[in-house]
Amino acid sequence: MRVSILAVGTELLFGQTVNTNAAFLSKNLQLMGFNVMHHYVVGDNPQRLKETLAEAFDKADIVITTGGLGPTQDDLTKEIVSEYMGEKLVCDEKVIDDLKAFFEKFGRKMSQNNIKQAYMPENGTTFYNDAGTAPACAIEKDGKCAICLPGPPREMTWLWNNGVKSYLEKFLDKKMFYKVIRTIGIGESDLETELLPVIDGQTDPTVATYAKEGECAIRVASQRDTLEEAENAVNQMIQRIDALVGQYIYSTDDEELKEVVVRILKEKGLTLSSAESCTAGKFAAAITDVPGASAVYGTGFVTYSIDAKVNQLGVDRNLIERDGVVSSTVAEAMAVQARNKSGSDIAVAITGYAGPDADDGYKAGDAYIGYATSEKSGYIEVHTGAARRDWNREGFTLRMLRTVYLLIEGRL
Amino acid sequence: MRVSILAVGTELLFGQTVNTNAAFLSKNLQLMGFNVMHHYVVGDNPQRLKETLAEAFDKADIVITTGGLGPTQDDLTKEIVSEYMGEKLVCDEKVIDDLKAFFEKFGRKMSQNNIKQAYMPENGTTFYNDAGTAPACAIEKDGKCAICLPGPPREMTWLWNNGVKSYLEKFLDKKMFYKVIRTIGIGESDLETELLPVIDGQTDPTVATYAKEGECAIRVASQRDTLEEAENAVNQMIQRIDALVGQYIYSTDDEELKEVVVRILKEKGLTLSSAESCTAGKFAAAITDVPGASAVYGTGFVTYSIDAKVNQLGVDRNLIERDGVVSSTVAEAMAVQARNKSGSDIAVAITGYAGPDADDGYKAGDAYIGYATSEKSGYIEVHTGAARRDWNREGFTLRMLRTVYLLIEGRL
Repeated sequence: MRVSILAVGTELLFGQTVNTNAAFLSKNLQLMGFNVMHHYVVGDNPQRLKETLAEAFDKADIVITTGGLGPTQDDLTKEIVSEYMGEKLVCDEKVIDDLKAFFEKFGRKMSQNNIKQAYMPENGTTFYNDAGTAPACAIEKDGKCAICLPGPPREMTWLWNNGVKSYLEKFLDKKMFYKVIRTIGIGESDLETELLPVIDGQTDPTVATYAKEGECAIRVASQRDTLEEAENAVNQMIQRIDALVGQYIYSTDDEELKEVVVRILKEKGLTLSSAESCTAGKFAAAITDVPGASAVYGTGFVTYSIDAKVNQLGVDRNLIERDGVVSSTVAEAMAVQARNKSGSDIAVAITGYAGPDADDGYKAGDAYIGYATSEKSGYIEVHTGAARRDWNREGFTLRMLRTVYLLIEGRL
Repeated sequence: MRVSILAVGTELLFGQTVNTNAAFLSKNLQLMGFNVMHHYVVGDNPQRLKETLAEAFDKADIVITTGGLGPTQDDLTKEIVSEYMGEKLVCDEKVIDDLKAFFEKFGRKMSQNNIKQAYMPENGTTFYNDAGTAPACAIEKDGKCAICLPGPPREMTWLWNNGVKSYLEKFLDKKMFYKVIRTIGIGESDLETELLPVIDGQTDPTVATYAKEGECAIRVASQRDTLEEAENAVNQMIQRIDALVGQYIYSTDDEELKEVVVRILKEKGLTLSSAESCTAGKFAAAITDVPGASAVYGTGFVTYSIDAKVNQLGVDRNLIERDGVVSSTVAEAMAVQARNKSGSDIAVAITGYAGPDADDGYKAGDAYIGYATSEKSGYIEVHTGAARRDWNREGFTLRMLRTVYLLIEGRL
């Protein structure tokens, strides 16, 4: 079953709103086993909406619109869609009652404009909206189906979860299952080359690689008669992929690296601290993005200046003067001292040049990451080499996470 | 001039990626004075790409594609667009050299796949990419223009700012100039009410308010025959706006609050330190995002645990036990101690609940910000009350910046 998504709203064409609805619906439709064919965005313009609706139905069986169900004059989606599907709009008294109750709850009087929102397709399906004022609706005709959802993401997702999703199930004959594998340490084209044996000539499950910020992901998807069959096919394929590129995989369940790191630290009962120069808090912030990180992370040192490295962390000033503040020995000493001062099991540290400027023969994007455990300490060299300071800092942070990951997995 | 945006990528139809590129391009195109007509998204499918391209050109003069310029087999945008525009792709030796240098820099060998990225339209314009491997291109024919940009947002925005934007200027007959004014301490509807005298009945310059992360901005834009005329009109309008809402303005040049804070600290010769619990490094990271921040910021304390607050920062454990770790007195003590330990002129600190959970009768989004100078110390209460942990942490960070701003401007 082919589905397209048509968003209506001038604010999208002005770039004031990002079309997160299309992503939400696509993800959920794909998970159900629908094929999402196109996304379209048009402004609040009846003529262009009509044309785009015809284009969308030309290549899809189901078209889901978002937006344009509000009470104002420029909200015209339901009217245009009903006209296109040959349906009359009639007043639904239940919607009038719902609207009155909604406004009463907030101590406001219902505006006359809102009555427009109670006119629903005569032979369609109405999805009442407990999360706002605009009900959704579906109209079926000649093997085609149009569904109109409101634009505000909170209302749209509420209606999806409370009616629209179940309504759509009748259109499916096959079930879809997919998983996303996350990797580090390999570029997209190398990854694809390694995976050629499972990509070439493969129709189901499908295997596709794609680049995400600083790493690569692999999507494995299968569409079968039952969900179990699809899930089995995906899991078998993941075993084949693991045999080919297992050393690069850190999650077969679409987890982020920071989540994986916090999870493994918890499992192993280890605590972590950090000392940051060029990232200056970004690593600490990334780790503590994960809810429950307090079980494994308590102390971080932001030692941006040389004085902070000496006074706050206790790095030997002579070492800094001898080897330079950006050096492997200082990175390692920072990690050792962070571990000593905080009493954590593991510490990670960084010193480097985020840019735009660098010094001492280094380039922006050059850094050393130090690490320390009860058994050993060491460092790795990093070259992110990006044109922008913020990209280098992102790259540094990801590589610190990778260092901790390799360390706790016994691979460093 | 009518422009449409066509994003290519199955990951968008799978909902794994949100189409932020369309929003970025739309915003920037509108600011230049183009009319954005439609957004389209298609998967990595040559036939559907071809059809959608034709549909897009049917209602627009310029079509900008994003995505599908990578080295792999399913990357076909440049090939399909060139074919549609009747252009041949020929090998550009400069791109080959750039690619080789790119891979050398990262100590990797260029894959054979990447050579595909060096084939550019014979009579088109190539925009070389210093932020990645995929160059962008433009092809003009019969009054129509197609522009192909890569999909990764970093590369896409880099190419927009370094070539594509200037290239597009020739299609405009009027020149656009705009400035963005940043405010804090006033909500969007109040701001709009205050600005009614300059918004009502105004056609050029246009004055529009919009909400940005935790603050409000005012965009003043003018479209005139020359850039000078437009600039003058904008600057005159900014004077009128300043007379109305001057006390809320912190930048008339679209500076971010962190940039303004670092600039003022530098001008006043003051240094800053921080102690963070619930933001855990995000404030330090925000300040050091600004190039040259090392002149004003040297030391940060990430004291996520109670032990870290006591051992690393020297906050009295009895105080924490008496008043609770999230309390105004602990926030103030953290700031005082951060200032003492680091020797900075000013210190700011935070303790609170980012969520999802909270304790002691507090809600997620409740926090105290402490501050200390040589003359005084104090605290402010914060309630961001967002549904998500990351939003609360962003809100906390912005409010810490605001606290420092008000402090150094003598307004706290």
